[in-house]
Amino acid sequence: MSPEVDEAKSQESVQQSLQQVMALLQKHRLVEQLVHRQDMPRHELVETLVHRQNLAELQQKLAELHPADVAYILEALPLEERLIVWNLVKADRDGEILLEASDAVRATLIADMAPEELVAATEQLDTDEIADLAPDLPEEVIEDVFQALSVEEREQLRAAMSYPEDSVGALMDFDMVTVREDVTIEVVLRYLRRLDDLPDHTDQLFVVDRNEVLQGVLPIGRVLVTDPDRLVIDLMLVDAVRLKPHDDAEEAAQAFERYDLVSAPVVDDHGQLVGRVTVAAVVDFIRDQSDSEMLNLAGLREDEDIFSSVWKSAQNRWTWLAINLVTAFIASRVIGLFEGSIEKLVALAALMPIVAGIGGNSGNQTITMIVRAMALGQIQRANAKALLTKELLISLLNGLVWGSIFGVFAMLLYHSWALGLVMMAAMTLNLLVAASFGVFIPMLMHRFGRDPAVGSSVLITAITDSGGFFIFLGLATLFLV
Amino acid sequence: MSPEVDEAKSQESVQQSLQQVMALLQKHRLVEQLVHRQDMPRHELVETLVHRQNLAELQQKLAELHPADVAYILEALPLEERLIVWNLVKADRDGEILLEASDAVRATLIADMAPEELVAATEQLDTDEIADLAPDLPEEVIEDVFQALSVEEREQLRAAMSYPEDSVGALMDFDMVTVREDVTIEVVLRYLRRLDDLPDHTDQLFVVDRNEVLQGVLPIGRVLVTDPDRLVIDLMLVDAVRLKPHDDAEEAAQAFERYDLVSAPVVDDHGQLVGRVTVAAVVDFIRDQSDSEMLNLAGLREDEDIFSSVWKSAQNRWTWLAINLVTAFIASRVIGLFEGSIEKLVALAALMPIVAGIGGNSGNQTITMIVRAMALGQIQRANAKALLTKELLISLLNGLVWGSIFGVFAMLLYHSWALGLVMMAAMTLNLLVAASFGVFIPMLMHRFGRDPAVGSSVLITAITDSGGFFIFLGLATLFLV
Repeated sequence: MSPEVDEAKSQESVQQSLQQVMALLQKHRLVEQLVHRQDMPRHELVETLVHRQNLAELQQKLAELHPADVAYILEALPLEERLIVWNLVKADRDGEILLEASDAVRATLIADMAPEELVAATEQLDTDEIADLAPDLPEEVIEDVFQALSVEEREQLRAAMSYPEDSVGALMDFDMVTVREDVTIEVVLRYLRRLDDLPDHTDQLFVVDRNEVLQGVLPIGRVLVTDPDRLVIDLMLVDAVRLKPHDDAEEAAQAFERYDLVSAPVVDDHGQLVGRVTVAAVVDFIRDQSDSEMLNLAGLREDEDIFSSVWKSAQNRWTWLAINLVTAFIASRVIGLFEGSIEKLVALAALMPIVAGIGGNSGNQTITMIVRAMALGQIQRANAKALLTKELLISLLNGLVWGSIFGVFAMLLYHSWALGLVMMAAMTLNLLVAASFGVFIPMLMHRFGRDPAVGSSVLITAITDSGGFFIFLGLATLFLV
Repeated sequence: MSPEVDEAKSQESVQQSLQQVMALLQKHRLVEQLVHRQDMPRHELVETLVHRQNLAELQQKLAELHPADVAYILEALPLEERLIVWNLVKADRDGEILLEASDAVRATLIADMAPEELVAATEQLDTDEIADLAPDLPEEVIEDVFQALSVEEREQLRAAMSYPEDSVGALMDFDMVTVREDVTIEVVLRYLRRLDDLPDHTDQLFVVDRNEVLQGVLPIGRVLVTDPDRLVIDLMLVDAVRLKPHDDAEEAAQAFERYDLVSAPVVDDHGQLVGRVTVAAVVDFIRDQSDSEMLNLAGLREDEDIFSSVWKSAQNRWTWLAINLVTAFIASRVIGLFEGSIEKLVALAALMPIVAGIGGNSGNQTITMIVRAMALGQIQRANAKALLTKELLISLLNGLVWGSIFGVFAMLLYHSWALGLVMMAAMTLNLLVAASFGVFIPMLMHRFGRDPAVGSSVLITAITDSGGFFIFLGLATLFLV
């Protein structure tokens, strides 16, 4: 094993692998097209030597890759080529690859598999992994898999499937190594040496009594550096973080971030150890969370397969487009109320989007601040008033500054100082509206048990649009027309 | 150590600690107000028994908390109370707490400290941690700290400070444990037992030759489960992930996610081991990244201390507000071009925000999809055309569906089938504009070496606003007026 070879291998990024696979697929396509032009029947094509060599090369390439990298490549391919590649992957890796693929892409892969293939793929997985796949599998497949499990595994699977999506239970796995508190490190070392390998992310052993009640944790580092004659009970940590299956996953993720954890025990209400959460599950959770925040902000319902059909993509986007159009319609009717004023002073039509726009922008800034601080639990009753005051003052400042600038613009453009004053007043008022609702909307949503990150942005924009039009056109009608 | 006590401690969340600290601070404030009303001079107040007891209780509470939790509480407090708490924290924990605080809050804490205090706080930290703090410290402090370091540490500090913010070098620490390949596991075990403790996140030992060139990695699990007589060279993994200091941190983070890593070695161009990256640094990086994406999308320049002064907050928000106002001004001038048409047909003023709105919404959906896929490296030349086609088809579908609905609305409201047709055509065209620019903008930004996530959203909204007004009013002028 020369270091050169090693170097070369580890330097190849997954993007490079993707490019290679794409190049091989293009060759494959060219051969097919050639054959097609010569009107060769399909079954003969499959026999072609070039064709077979080509696919063998592709299969070879895929076999070298980590399951996560295969999933990544599948996600980047259009449906037809995705299925060519999927059928070249060794069957015994199907389960792991499905697990790594995004929800949308996983569905396209599962749709292409026979029930027996799915059962075979699923059976290779751990129970917590089966629980992750289960929602996407046909019922008959789950039943078959369930039959093949041991009693203990069935219990675990049933438990894992029972926890809500954003709970600690959903992040949990069952790969814990447990020891007793009254043994020496020597005994622990001998016990470990009997195992084939330690489960991934085993940075600590869990110390339990005979009833599986968690007594403490023993970091692997301590096992390695201390005198083998010492007792576990003297070395274990008793005040380490412990989670419960029904805890909020977001809070657990914050604990991992704050205390730099690699794993944490999960105990039930009686203190019995039921599983553990690893940082790998937490990293995936954090990434999913931030992805869905981004997607929701942009008005996408869920993660989209970039090569899904037009029809499916359109459905994914309609919910939010529809909401947005309803709010746009309301804003339009607000303008409709003042058509008489606009007819008399058409400058109003040109200026009104500025008033609405600055309100929306500023309101979204406030809401983002508040939603973030709320997610971290940093907003309490005691400081809510101070926050509102601060946001209102910033809006007043912004309103006076930007309002004056645009007031002067409006005055110069339309030669009316009264119009300039109305412009400035409307901008300031709409900014104050934006600040108030920017603070109130997330707080109200939180109060009623809803996630303040979802929909707050649409709501504030609706309010500042309709509000901005109403304030500006209303003031203009009172003072100018 | 009874399990009950243990349980109680680990069950207390950081939010509960925050509430307790806030309650203690409120008591403190009440005493001060009482004293103030009695016109007692301040130095006598400090002598008051109640006052002293109160602060002692607060100090006691703070001493129990993890540095990360203290930082969290400091972030949630208004400036005045933040500094009261900060001065009660034991001086020997200052460094760690500064490290955990957000940039904005850290600045307020550093501003309150004397240079000697800062030097003392910084000297307790590791060199990679000092490098993290350095940008916020006064130059004289850095020089003093630098003088106190060993030659090796100075070298590390200089290296750590030299890497750009989003590189692997910036995430790196220097806590690696190295072994030679030609020794037995027995020797490794004896070597480890001589250490006081393993560094956090040591899930693998790094195998190097006498020139510090990395040969492979040896997972701790293998050390524990295998026969002590075996050689390191037979057990080490040679094809594990290895990073380089100038690699993109985002790519490293993706490797950690994909391969579920806890730590990874960092090597220079000669293959020499220079440091390691741990999952703790990666988790912080991922959270920071997603935070700044959110903040940028909402038009906030950077993370904001929720209790910063109105003036500072306003500055943080002005860059994007200003950009937004410029684009709103341009849109306003586009409308200005068509004032004649609006005067003749005032319904146009009421309907035009709908056309602009749906374009902005749909364009942002497209851009979010593309930016995400680009961040994952899944967009290549070979599939760009397929993507653009898909987005254009979705837009066409949306335009025909929603355009018809709003066309009918417009027709019914204003009794003009021609207006309805213009409405439908304008919505469809603006959606096609949104889809094209939604694909092109991020690709062009990427081509010119800019981060497509920053500013794309503002740009697309500007285009769909001005474009929507132009298309709708233009069509109306041609066919209706």
